Amino acid sequence: MPTTVYEPAELAPGTLRVTPLGGLGEVGRNMTVFEYEGKLLVVDCGVLFPEEHQPGVDLILPDFEPIKSRLDDVVGVVLTHGHEDHIGAVPYLLKLKGDIPLIGSQLTLALVEAKLKEHRIRPFSLTVAEGQQEKVGPFDLEFIAVNHSIPDALAVAITTPAGRALATGDFKMDQLPLDGRITDLRAFARLGEEGVDLFLVDSTNADVPGFTPLERAIGPVLDQVIGKAPRRVIVASFSSHVHRVQQVIDAAHAHGRRLAFLGRSMVRNMTIAEQLGYLNVPEGVLIDYKKAKDLPDDKIVYMSTGSQGEPMAVLSRMANLDHAIEPGPGDTVILASSLIPGNENAVYRVIDGLTKLGANVVHKGNAKVHVSGHAAAGELLYCYNILKPRNVLPVHGEYRHLIANAKLAQDTGILEENTIIAENGTVIDLKDGTATVVGQLDLGFVYVDGSTVGEITDADLKDRRILGEEGFISVIVVVDSSTGRIITGPEIHARGFAESDDVFDAVKPKIAAALAEAAGNGVRDNHALSQVVRRTIGRWVNQSLRRRPMIVPLVIEA
Amino acid sequence: MPTTVYEPAELAPGTLRVTPLGGLGEVGRNMTVFEYEGKLLVVDCGVLFPEEHQPGVDLILPDFEPIKSRLDDVVGVVLTHGHEDHIGAVPYLLKLKGDIPLIGSQLTLALVEAKLKEHRIRPFSLTVAEGQQEKVGPFDLEFIAVNHSIPDALAVAITTPAGRALATGDFKMDQLPLDGRITDLRAFARLGEEGVDLFLVDSTNADVPGFTPLERAIGPVLDQVIGKAPRRVIVASFSSHVHRVQQVIDAAHAHGRRLAFLGRSMVRNMTIAEQLGYLNVPEGVLIDYKKAKDLPDDKIVYMSTGSQGEPMAVLSRMANLDHAIEPGPGDTVILASSLIPGNENAVYRVIDGLTKLGANVVHKGNAKVHVSGHAAAGELLYCYNILKPRNVLPVHGEYRHLIANAKLAQDTGILEENTIIAENGTVIDLKDGTATVVGQLDLGFVYVDGSTVGEITDADLKDRRILGEEGFISVIVVVDSSTGRIITGPEIHARGFAESDDVFDAVKPKIAAALAEAAGNGVRDNHALSQVVRRTIGRWVNQSLRRRPMIVPLVIEA
Repeated sequence: MPTTVYEPAELAPGTLRVTPLGGLGEVGRNMTVFEYEGKLLVVDCGVLFPEEHQPGVDLILPDFEPIKSRLDDVVGVVLTHGHEDHIGAVPYLLKLKGDIPLIGSQLTLALVEAKLKEHRIRPFSLTVAEGQQEKVGPFDLEFIAVNHSIPDALAVAITTPAGRALATGDFKMDQLPLDGRITDLRAFARLGEEGVDLFLVDSTNADVPGFTPLERAIGPVLDQVIGKAPRRVIVASFSSHVHRVQQVIDAAHAHGRRLAFLGRSMVRNMTIAEQLGYLNVPEGVLIDYKKAKDLPDDKIVYMSTGSQGEPMAVLSRMANLDHAIEPGPGDTVILASSLIPGNENAVYRVIDGLTKLGANVVHKGNAKVHVSGHAAAGELLYCYNILKPRNVLPVHGEYRHLIANAKLAQDTGILEENTIIAENGTVIDLKDGTATVVGQLDLGFVYVDGSTVGEITDADLKDRRILGEEGFISVIVVVDSSTGRIITGPEIHARGFAESDDVFDAVKPKIAAALAEAAGNGVRDNHALSQVVRRTIGRWVNQSLRRRPMIVPLVIEA
Repeated sequence: MPTTVYEPAELAPGTLRVTPLGGLGEVGRNMTVFEYEGKLLVVDCGVLFPEEHQPGVDLILPDFEPIKSRLDDVVGVVLTHGHEDHIGAVPYLLKLKGDIPLIGSQLTLALVEAKLKEHRIRPFSLTVAEGQQEKVGPFDLEFIAVNHSIPDALAVAITTPAGRALATGDFKMDQLPLDGRITDLRAFARLGEEGVDLFLVDSTNADVPGFTPLERAIGPVLDQVIGKAPRRVIVASFSSHVHRVQQVIDAAHAHGRRLAFLGRSMVRNMTIAEQLGYLNVPEGVLIDYKKAKDLPDDKIVYMSTGSQGEPMAVLSRMANLDHAIEPGPGDTVILASSLIPGNENAVYRVIDGLTKLGANVVHKGNAKVHVSGHAAAGELLYCYNILKPRNVLPVHGEYRHLIANAKLAQDTGILEENTIIAENGTVIDLKDGTATVVGQLDLGFVYVDGSTVGEITDADLKDRRILGEEGFISVIVVVDSSTGRIITGPEIHARGFAESDDVFDAVKPKIAAALAEAAGNGVRDNHALSQVVRRTIGRWVNQSLRRRPMIVPLVIEA
């Protein structure tokens, strides 16, 4: 169903307005704006990674348009945790206005500050911890510990006279997490008793039945694989998954191996995590990877990036023998990571490459070396029952995830009319316990490509898809500006099109004839002549080769 | 490891030579050539579907080069079953020589003949059945029933004085298949007793532990879902999966629903399957889809194509409301199919689109509606133990699958030296029970694009990838052929590049200056001047925008 766009009425006094700008109908670029009495609070500001139909795009940002003219009203950006899909767009927001305060936990802010440093931005930031309350503009904030695949994640309760919203951020409910920091259901219970009017809840795994297994179930598997490994061990995981890395460090240490970090983001994040005490590295375990080469093969574990098959990351380069460390027979490679949809072919290419080099590759397809960071259906039911929110807004997921999450809420007794399936740009007003959809903004994708932001349009991407699938043919004709007679050409060049340029010898006379006929009919306009060229060669190429390349006709006057 | 290419010595008398041309290190374009005493027997001749790094390609064929000059020596092509990755390249082979005999089961030949009809080719064909023996040239063939996700699949034993090879084709060992036609392990046992020198065995699921579940376990799930469905039901699966369709027909019939086929290949294949008696359709169940619209919603099941998210297939078009049948709330869609790696995003987009329209989507992620067609590790172990082959050549799989399969063989006691990990083009000679790798041919990918075969090169695909990721900039300069002076230009046009052409105003003077300097230095060659243009704008675009589009400079004389 095409979305009907309509502007909301001006926000009435005493009403809380909630507008997700990203993260609904997609996994990525999470960002929600809360407005009360003329002030704006932003929760998260992440990036989305492009899919194959968005070729050449580096990142996709939320569409800041609705707040662009109101940046002076933004009292703060709450960052629930340090993953890219929640913090990655912060530099682009701060480039618009550098002094918007960032609010988040110690680790979250450390990670975002490291990122901002690369963009040469020093933010204003307010570090908060679970249990802490802060008044930011008209918003009373309370931060609640949640457990996720990165430490120090926070949910945030946002209270105004119009009502209270609770945003989980990303979370799961591991009951025995490595750091003992569980999702604080006691706080959920208390807030529920007091009343939660709108529950913004992570939907990523809402369609996964049951419960996410314990993170610590992975430790013994890693320990066993590393313990039995005859030669070198290389483990790849997300570079922010501190607890996964902790388990690898513990297993390495238990088997008398040293550990070296590989990959820029892995080194950077783990240095931060260790400095702040989130990662516990026993004395003498870490070693620089350049020195590690002097160790015996059975005394080293490399902890690396590249678990998603990213072509420039360490693991892919290793598989292509394009890295100082070259895997070989007897080596063990562990992909202790998820497989994000769309990355399958890339990851399997890496696995194949490593296997071909003789390595034994262990991954979630053949061993229990990964668990998800998101609450599955069983955990979400606990949340709904303990919180009993008046209204539910499933966030953070594709459409099917949002629907599945709403159904779970309904299973616990929440009325269908109180579960809101929204899109990016849906405007929801909250007052007196009632949540109402009052508008739908027209938001777009903001593409980052190289150093440009928002220059690439969907039309450009369509051109790229045609160019990428079919290549192009350019036809240049130079005409005399006074007589309209062809001076040179048609010159025809093709790229990505395959046939040698000789193939065009057959069509050149047709183009010349078509142009002569057009000229005979008094056509002198260059654009019209270009269209004659386009039609002539387009029809020929389609009929003779059954292909549809992009055709770029250029009629130039000299 | 880069493959070392070396020509084999001339085939010695009394030796059987085996050369896989496709299907090793990939899932698709299966084709193996057997040579004895100057005669060639081909087993399978399939296509490979392109991955995302092969943009715009329609199909990939095996490289026929090693047999192109010897087509008169080909005594036949054995087709083990009717899947595209085993029969899809037959039209392209027969276009080279139309009278090569095709040998296969009734259903296999019916499917390949329907395909050849579209190419206006009438083949010479020999229909065979399990248990049948045929002498084809110097090759004694015996055909053995195997069970797969299409009926009437055959393994083939190829016996010559040099020894015996057994090629499984694709198979699994469902012990209770719908048609009662199990993989004939009695025949495997007998052949094993007599002696099998080389076992070419399907590796697709060699890295999947355990056993593939029974096909008939799906029937009750389909029955339950269809029985409970309040409105219309749409089931998507592979268009050749006769037994899956049979189970859908049975469930529809049991619940008083009629069934309509949707999609060209589904209609064609099921018509063939029914005519030949492989599909059993109760009287009065089938209905034309145009008439089905008049039935009450709870009286119809649509059986459609598009289970892999193919954009032009019925299911994708339905999800985009681009089909006569528009799914809506209360409708049930069942994807009774695998999810081939690389198709995830496309399939999830279809699921999301259907969910958004209100349909309940059932797929293998949330219900037991698919089982694989290939033998898992447990089944392969049975094969090795019952057959006890002298040498094993794992085929049909990515490298990791071949390795996993070889390890299974070794687990049953076959020596590592007798398990051959080969690539496409590896030449294996068999004599006196000994299999020896004697050569490695240099084979390529043969791309079909539109009506062209083998015209697209890897260089063209690299161009397409650059064009698709970055777009292009063309720069045209018209120079006076006698003086070398610029008459017109530089004219700059870009596509897929995003910025408006105004952005180039900054670089035009630089190009003119660079050309003037080159002219001042006496450069008059158009190619050299083009390079000057390329360098100037390339450097500018990279520095100012951090992008690397394709640059197409054209210096034209007028």
